[in-house]
Amino acid sequence: MKFIDLRSDTVTHPTEKMRQLMASAPVGDDVYGDDETVIKLEEETARILGKEAALFVPSGVFGNQLSILTHTERTNEIILGENSHIIAHEAGSVALISNVQTRTLKDDLGELDPKEVQKAVRKGEDIHFPKTGLICVETAHSTGNVASLENLKSISEIAKAYEIPVHLDGARLFNAAAHLKVDAKEIAQYADSISLCLSKGLCAPVGSVVSGSKEFIAKARKNRKILGGGMRQVGILAAAGLEALDMRHRLNEDHENARYFGEELHKIPGISVRLDEIKINMIFFTIDKEGFQESDLVAHMKEHGILMNGSDEGVFRFVTHYYVTRERINQVLQILREYFQ
Amino acid sequence: MKFIDLRSDTVTHPTEKMRQLMASAPVGDDVYGDDETVIKLEEETARILGKEAALFVPSGVFGNQLSILTHTERTNEIILGENSHIIAHEAGSVALISNVQTRTLKDDLGELDPKEVQKAVRKGEDIHFPKTGLICVETAHSTGNVASLENLKSISEIAKAYEIPVHLDGARLFNAAAHLKVDAKEIAQYADSISLCLSKGLCAPVGSVVSGSKEFIAKARKNRKILGGGMRQVGILAAAGLEALDMRHRLNEDHENARYFGEELHKIPGISVRLDEIKINMIFFTIDKEGFQESDLVAHMKEHGILMNGSDEGVFRFVTHYYVTRERINQVLQILREYFQ
Amino acid sequence: MKFIDLRSDTVTHPTEKMRQLMASAPVGDDVYGDDETVIKLEEETARILGKEAALFVPSGVFGNQLSILTHTERTNEIILGENSHIIAHEAGSVALISNVQTRTLKDDLGELDPKEVQKAVRKGEDIHFPKTGLICVETAHSTGNVASLENLKSISEIAKAYEIPVHLDGARLFNAAAHLKVDAKEIAQYADSISLCLSKGLCAPVGSVVSGSKEFIAKARKNRKILGGGMRQVGILAAAGLEALDMRHRLNEDHENARYFGEELHKIPGISVRLDEIKINMIFFTIDKEGFQESDLVAHMKEHGILMNGSDEGVFRFVTHYYVTRERINQVLQILREYFQ
Amino acid sequence: MKFIDLRSDTVTHPTEKMRQLMASAPVGDDVYGDDETVIKLEEETARILGKEAALFVPSGVFGNQLSILTHTERTNEIILGENSHIIAHEAGSVALISNVQTRTLKDDLGELDPKEVQKAVRKGEDIHFPKTGLICVETAHSTGNVASLENLKSISEIAKAYEIPVHLDGARLFNAAAHLKVDAKEIAQYADSISLCLSKGLCAPVGSVVSGSKEFIAKARKNRKILGGGMRQVGILAAAGLEALDMRHRLNEDHENARYFGEELHKIPGISVRLDEIKINMIFFTIDKEGFQESDLVAHMKEHGILMNGSDEGVFRFVTHYYVTRERINQVLQILREYFQ
Repeated sequence: MKFIDLRSDTVTHPTEKMRQLMASAPVGDDVYGDDETVIKLEEETARILGKEAALFVPSGVFGNQLSILTHTERTNEIILGENSHIIAHEAGSVALISNVQTRTLKDDLGELDPKEVQKAVRKGEDIHFPKTGLICVETAHSTGNVASLENLKSISEIAKAYEIPVHLDGARLFNAAAHLKVDAKEIAQYADSISLCLSKGLCAPVGSVVSGSKEFIAKARKNRKILGGGMRQVGILAAAGLEALDMRHRLNEDHENARYFGEELHKIPGISVRLDEIKINMIFFTIDKEGFQESDLVAHMKEHGILMNGSDEGVFRFVTHYYVTRERINQVLQILREYFQ
Repeated sequence: MKFIDLRSDTVTHPTEKMRQLMASAPVGDDVYGDDETVIKLEEETARILGKEAALFVPSGVFGNQLSILTHTERTNEIILGENSHIIAHEAGSVALISNVQTRTLKDDLGELDPKEVQKAVRKGEDIHFPKTGLICVETAHSTGNVASLENLKSISEIAKAYEIPVHLDGARLFNAAAHLKVDAKEIAQYADSISLCLSKGLCAPVGSVVSGSKEFIAKARKNRKILGGGMRQVGILAAAGLEALDMRHRLNEDHENARYFGEELHKIPGISVRLDEIKINMIFFTIDKEGFQESDLVAHMKEHGILMNGSDEGVFRFVTHYYVTRERINQVLQILREYFQ
Repeated sequence: MKFIDLRSDTVTHPTEKMRQLMASAPVGDDVYGDDETVIKLEEETARILGKEAALFVPSGVFGNQLSILTHTERTNEIILGENSHIIAHEAGSVALISNVQTRTLKDDLGELDPKEVQKAVRKGEDIHFPKTGLICVETAHSTGNVASLENLKSISEIAKAYEIPVHLDGARLFNAAAHLKVDAKEIAQYADSISLCLSKGLCAPVGSVVSGSKEFIAKARKNRKILGGGMRQVGILAAAGLEALDMRHRLNEDHENARYFGEELHKIPGISVRLDEIKINMIFFTIDKEGFQESDLVAHMKEHGILMNGSDEGVFRFVTHYYVTRERINQVLQILREYFQ
Repeated sequence: MKFIDLRSDTVTHPTEKMRQLMASAPVGDDVYGDDETVIKLEEETARILGKEAALFVPSGVFGNQLSILTHTERTNEIILGENSHIIAHEAGSVALISNVQTRTLKDDLGELDPKEVQKAVRKGEDIHFPKTGLICVETAHSTGNVASLENLKSISEIAKAYEIPVHLDGARLFNAAAHLKVDAKEIAQYADSISLCLSKGLCAPVGSVVSGSKEFIAKARKNRKILGGGMRQVGILAAAGLEALDMRHRLNEDHENARYFGEELHKIPGISVRLDEIKINMIFFTIDKEGFQESDLVAHMKEHGILMNGSDEGVFRFVTHYYVTRERINQVLQILREYFQ
């Protein structure tokens, strides 16, 4: 990657090794169940998460929506965070595809409050009530937060008590596991289905995997066809995905880089970094400097080969990943130090 | 009505006058636009609410769902209270019919917090965001609360700023107006559409009316057909509805009865009434008495010709209406006093 | 009825007896299951059709759509006639409410061809196929045709063989029974659910009834709430409905009047009646006369107190009903004879 | 490809050249609009079809469903063939995603009858009618048929007259163009949107492209996100897609091979090939031989490294493609000759 791209970890390119694996992957028609590389990826993902089965899908949005469709019946109510990716960043998809009512709870720290969940579940049979059909959690959260195992366990227990399934949006599940210093299985045990992204920090070009019970995955396979996600010789992408799974072991490096990056940024006069919010590979900060103009900064950085997004109501976000090395972080810091002098 | 029915104001029977009006109403085929009694009811409702046009529909749920369908496009997000009737008591209908995502906010006192609404509105063009398509308010709220005019005005101003329509679930709009001692128009001015129930406290047997602009109502008329709410010689019901509109002037009596009822109940040892929550025709109370058994009380009352619901997690509700006169309230109080001795 | 209204049997007003019954009907809150008149109507309808249970709904469209929603799962395919009311006259409702794919077959004579039905059913398990979830038939058909018992039996047998339910749009079921000179049960036996209109030829102002098994009706009751068709003291309408059921015995009179009307019309030079298509209460005809202008005829008739629709691509339809007596038919004929001289 | 796979052209593996292109393709985050290989593929496809713009999507089903969603509004009716891929092989997706009613017409020869289309279009404003929102055609048809240019032109003219858009399912558009010996543009001119598969006969591993006006594609881009088809560094697949577009020039070879294959098969006693139905790369035949058992044949072929599907009600299909060379066809013929001796 030519640019230093701090906008997101979604911008990561496939590694050279992934490209070679894609060029030589054995493939088949996955709709006929003939693609051995896909089968291998699905089995490996299920094994890592401690689930019975898994299914390759084209994107993280697709994985979440497919899971919701597969768990629920129309008119069900689902409980989830008001800042969750499903609510805030999937363009209203859940309303179109699954015909479910969304009951949004506070999730400012990336966690749902178990008390609120308990209260939101519909109890008893009443002709006026919708039926609670699913609880969705997300970790690592797209705000950079990570739910604690205790929190996930509590929600899982409530769900079990009312026989409601739990879906985990684990787009960045391995970042959460790295932060908590636990095996991904430890997190995955609290969910009936998990959607996992192979792109983002793991660098695969395309693709996500949904995991769950054999029965759930069989039903999801039919629904994937309905949603247009049945692809043919997709072993090409699965080959990169298998390598991406291996790359989960290096995510800690991105987290350490983020901490270093944040701490150094914070030393620059005018920049305030929310240091205690750095949990995974995301740094949030504000800028308070006389005459500061956001658009000028973004343009200045671009001239120096650095891509960054504008702020969200004054809050900037930098994201570290495989292509944001310590060396490149130092380059960025140097440019910012000069800019803010 | 033989029983003293405290379960809800939905149980009200049509009055003798309504029955005579129904027996003699001129009717026509309303799908052909030929029913003069319906036309009269629609015009009268629009006039009372200060709107251009109105449309008769079979129920309050129907009126809300039709309004949402007519205001929105699929995948839109709508903002509304987590305890609103649409979310809590319409069985997930909004998800089935309108394909909209529901963004639920706190509404414990029957009001949405304008700051929360302002924050929840989606700003800017982002391919990831759903579009905010509607804000729904409800007054009087089904928890017995009444939103202030200031609150409704603030929400209306936010909505206007972002060009988002406002729907008012006014199932008990005239109760709210009576409580606030204002004309219903004063409330209705803050909404683009209002769904109003003719049954409940107003005693009509069946029916609601949706009001709004001419353009909105024309579109709603087509959608009413789609949803199976186009009825034929429905002037029969409209005749009762016209009388029901007149009965709005007596709702204050129900409210005064509720206050009297609540204050007297509170004097009975063991019963605690939430006196400052009595705003319209609803009284909420808890019972704390050694050996008290809910099912025994309900059965005892039924034996004495009094119908009441069991509690919602310990909270009981009594509702006053046309058939719960001061005399009948005194009968109930007497029986309760004896029961709790 | 002041006008002689030949546009449809949907225009019929309630009879004087119905009005009196409505004025005195015992009622209750039907959502609480408390309305004895509704219960009586539902039981009586079930009895007449030989089904276990029944449910009152606001309209014929509502009855059909509720039945489809209750029988199917989303993405199912349903098989039905291309000119059926559901496809041609329900404004696309089936697509909005039930998320089912419609497989439309020829039905020019009001019947589906069993061979075509057999072919259209999806066989075997294939991930590419939709599942056939329902077959819909309609009799009497809105084109005035009546399906034979043999035809309905054949379709029912195919449905049974593949375990697919059958819904009968019986908006004019009693007209079909009168034409076939059989009990309505004889027809209803070939369907798992029937939607029956109390308005139209039976003169009730509003309402339809859906019949089927106890299990089906219990599920439909919940779905009725979701669709906004749960009404309160609707015994008012059910009272008229009970009388409407009795009026099924006089439908033969409308059919005889239609035949008389058609034969006399055919004698008027310029008018060609499709005599062999007169099966129930509908007469179809074309007009071939030099200088004839449709709009002039419609206006001329209206001046004489007679309402008729314009043609559908040259084909006119007159409909007989309770308020189109032999005497009034003769009046219409006289005016037409003079007009076409 | 090790096996000789006659089941479909969907089984084709990427060529060695495609694999090398994928390994070296420049990529970017396509959701940010940064993937130059995707941009190049979209521009090239639009150019070839004579359209303004194009959009990469994960599958043929996705391309069709996205197009329908983008053209229509909920409750619209769409007109299409009863054997079209959308109706018969997309698992009811259209009902789930687009809430449109499907009006299915005969298409036994791969063409809709313009007279039937003209009749099926809803005319005039009637509150009972659905609105015709789209006409879908398909060529080459999945039954192996190819619509004539005259036929497509007629349908296009009807559509224009009623201001209805036309969508072309062109999964095998280049096969149709090769058969008609015309440029693909000649066919594409009769449609407002075209969905084109890069896999199948063109050998790309995954992917389809939707083409249309700039406005249509902008709207489709948003909808692609909603449906979960927004992918990241998908230039990997686009690189294979660009090569696939070039491979359209060799499809005639597959067609000639199919003809040769069919004629030789027909000479084998017991096999009857529908020779006049061989238009593209598909051969349909029946087997009439004493003691013949389908499962035995399929197993026998598999032992000899040849994959074939079982029959669809007695009709077998062989499909030729890049990996079914003349030499391999001769091998298959030899094995069949021996088997049927």
